[in-house]
Amino acid sequence: MPSEAPPGGSILVVGGTHGNERHAPWLLEQWRADPSSLTDHGFALELVVGNPAALAAGRRYIDRDLNRSFDPVLLADPQQQSLEVLRARALLQRHGPDGVAPALLALDLHSTTASMGNSLVVYGRRPCDLALAAGLQQRLGLPVYLHEADAAQSGFLVECWPCGVVIEVGPVPQGVLRAAICQQTQRALEAALAVLAAAAAGDLRLPPQLVVHRHLGSVDLPRRDDGSPAVLLHPNLEGADWRPLRSSDPVFIDRTGSPVPLGAALPPHLPAQETYWPVFINEAAYGEKGIAFSLTTKESWPVQQPWLQDLVSLSRRLQRGEPL
Amino acid sequence: MPSEAPPGGSILVVGGTHGNERHAPWLLEQWRADPSSLTDHGFALELVVGNPAALAAGRRYIDRDLNRSFDPVLLADPQQQSLEVLRARALLQRHGPDGVAPALLALDLHSTTASMGNSLVVYGRRPCDLALAAGLQQRLGLPVYLHEADAAQSGFLVECWPCGVVIEVGPVPQGVLRAAICQQTQRALEAALAVLAAAAAGDLRLPPQLVVHRHLGSVDLPRRDDGSPAVLLHPNLEGADWRPLRSSDPVFIDRTGSPVPLGAALPPHLPAQETYWPVFINEAAYGEKGIAFSLTTKESWPVQQPWLQDLVSLSRRLQRGEPL
Repeated sequence: MPSEAPPGGSILVVGGTHGNERHAPWLLEQWRADPSSLTDHGFALELVVGNPAALAAGRRYIDRDLNRSFDPVLLADPQQQSLEVLRARALLQRHGPDGVAPALLALDLHSTTASMGNSLVVYGRRPCDLALAAGLQQRLGLPVYLHEADAAQSGFLVECWPCGVVIEVGPVPQGVLRAAICQQTQRALEAALAVLAAAAAGDLRLPPQLVVHRHLGSVDLPRRDDGSPAVLLHPNLEGADWRPLRSSDPVFIDRTGSPVPLGAALPPHLPAQETYWPVFINEAAYGEKGIAFSLTTKESWPVQQPWLQDLVSLSRRLQRGEPL
Repeated sequence: MPSEAPPGGSILVVGGTHGNERHAPWLLEQWRADPSSLTDHGFALELVVGNPAALAAGRRYIDRDLNRSFDPVLLADPQQQSLEVLRARALLQRHGPDGVAPALLALDLHSTTASMGNSLVVYGRRPCDLALAAGLQQRLGLPVYLHEADAAQSGFLVECWPCGVVIEVGPVPQGVLRAAICQQTQRALEAALAVLAAAAAGDLRLPPQLVVHRHLGSVDLPRRDDGSPAVLLHPNLEGADWRPLRSSDPVFIDRTGSPVPLGAALPPHLPAQETYWPVFINEAAYGEKGIAFSLTTKESWPVQQPWLQDLVSLSRRLQRGEPL
């Protein structure tokens, strides 16, 4: 006989999806010892380390990036038996929307070597995600990176739950634990729970506009035949995440020491823009993905009533779940 | 018949002793393609990647830390067959003082997540190392971390050559390549070659004093039974390498959010001082070594004539070596 699921499902809080991002796993241990800061609103929370093997090894992953392993085709392929695909299947079997202890919403807590500040990553345009992002942006002013339409980067964890966003905080080196990054992560998670509680209570007033930085594509460093970078990132671009970048602005230094402007580095498939907004600049883990930085366009979207309705409906189902 | 060694030996320049410190390996490739910036002084240079397997894997090491593997007892033990011990033996067989292509001086280029700036690490009190450090401190103002008398940390690469120092530059995350860190590393190496050239020419005038930060011991975070940190580093201490620290200054935040002063965190074997000078604060790779930061005492040592004599003698032997 299948075990009885709670009526509303829970909120899945994941840390350590990447094993060298140490802040969220550290916070998970604090919250397990003392959950009081997260339980005010009566939601049932599942606190889960995404990739325990990678965390123990102090590495981003063992076989492949767990946060690119939630691809339906990959998950359904019996040939795929890497540690991370097995882990993705196990997480879904337990906490997926149809799992034995189902979650309806996933909050995946990450850190980055890039100067992203305290920020959100949203995948695609699900109304519920956009409402949650708008609520968080209103409370904390978080910038929102809207990732979509990039065939080279897919299989993100939160996409497998009905609603979910990534909380991304940086800069911090891989393997380092910093109090300030922990505090920012905790603040963002507490704000997300407060937004959901307000939605459940019918008290959530969203702002008229959601400002998103919509993903256009990524730019890599020119590389030698052996894959090593032939140039360096221009110092002006270091730490310049979320700041406007024009075609004439330097992005690389070539081996003679000369600056290379963005216009000369843009892949042909990227849409022409007067101004781009770069994100994930010089993220350590993206070298192997061929990403020196990603380019976005900054857009202001009217917040739509159906977004709020979806979030209200979801948050009420969540609040009928079992408390932590 | 053994191959004939050059009469004076060469300078061994090592990068990538740790495979996730990417700046020096990147510079080695630049220098191999165009050695002109290093060849002005006529020294024979050997440009060597310390740990190619770890560099390819993007990890500090594969089996054990290469820069703790140059321990004579370890190297002589036939039971020791880890990748890094084998690599240490191979480097010594080729470029050790008695190797087939012997080097007399080793410059080992590192980067760190700690805010060490452009700095030198000297192991023990060999006159030649101290003279080189004094010459570099005079030219570039580099702070000098004098590491000695720590049984828990030994087997450093440069100790196996008659003279040698570590050039340590930070902060930079592991796995990230930054132009500014490359430039600082290159500047320190060029200055070291200029000091040696001046010594060989009889033109080196050392300063009257060498300022050293002498290692006293290391402090770890209090940990739980499973080894995970029970507290966080205090934000005041982040990035405060080389700055004075007193017993009443906070170094940790406990789980209630209260600051823990240095005085309450000092291991009993550390000598009492009015002021300590911390280094390698929150270096990512030192968590597994049980080091949250190391404490030094700042001392000003009169530069001694025999130091200079040793460096002059060595640099003249080097200059009789074969050019690159």
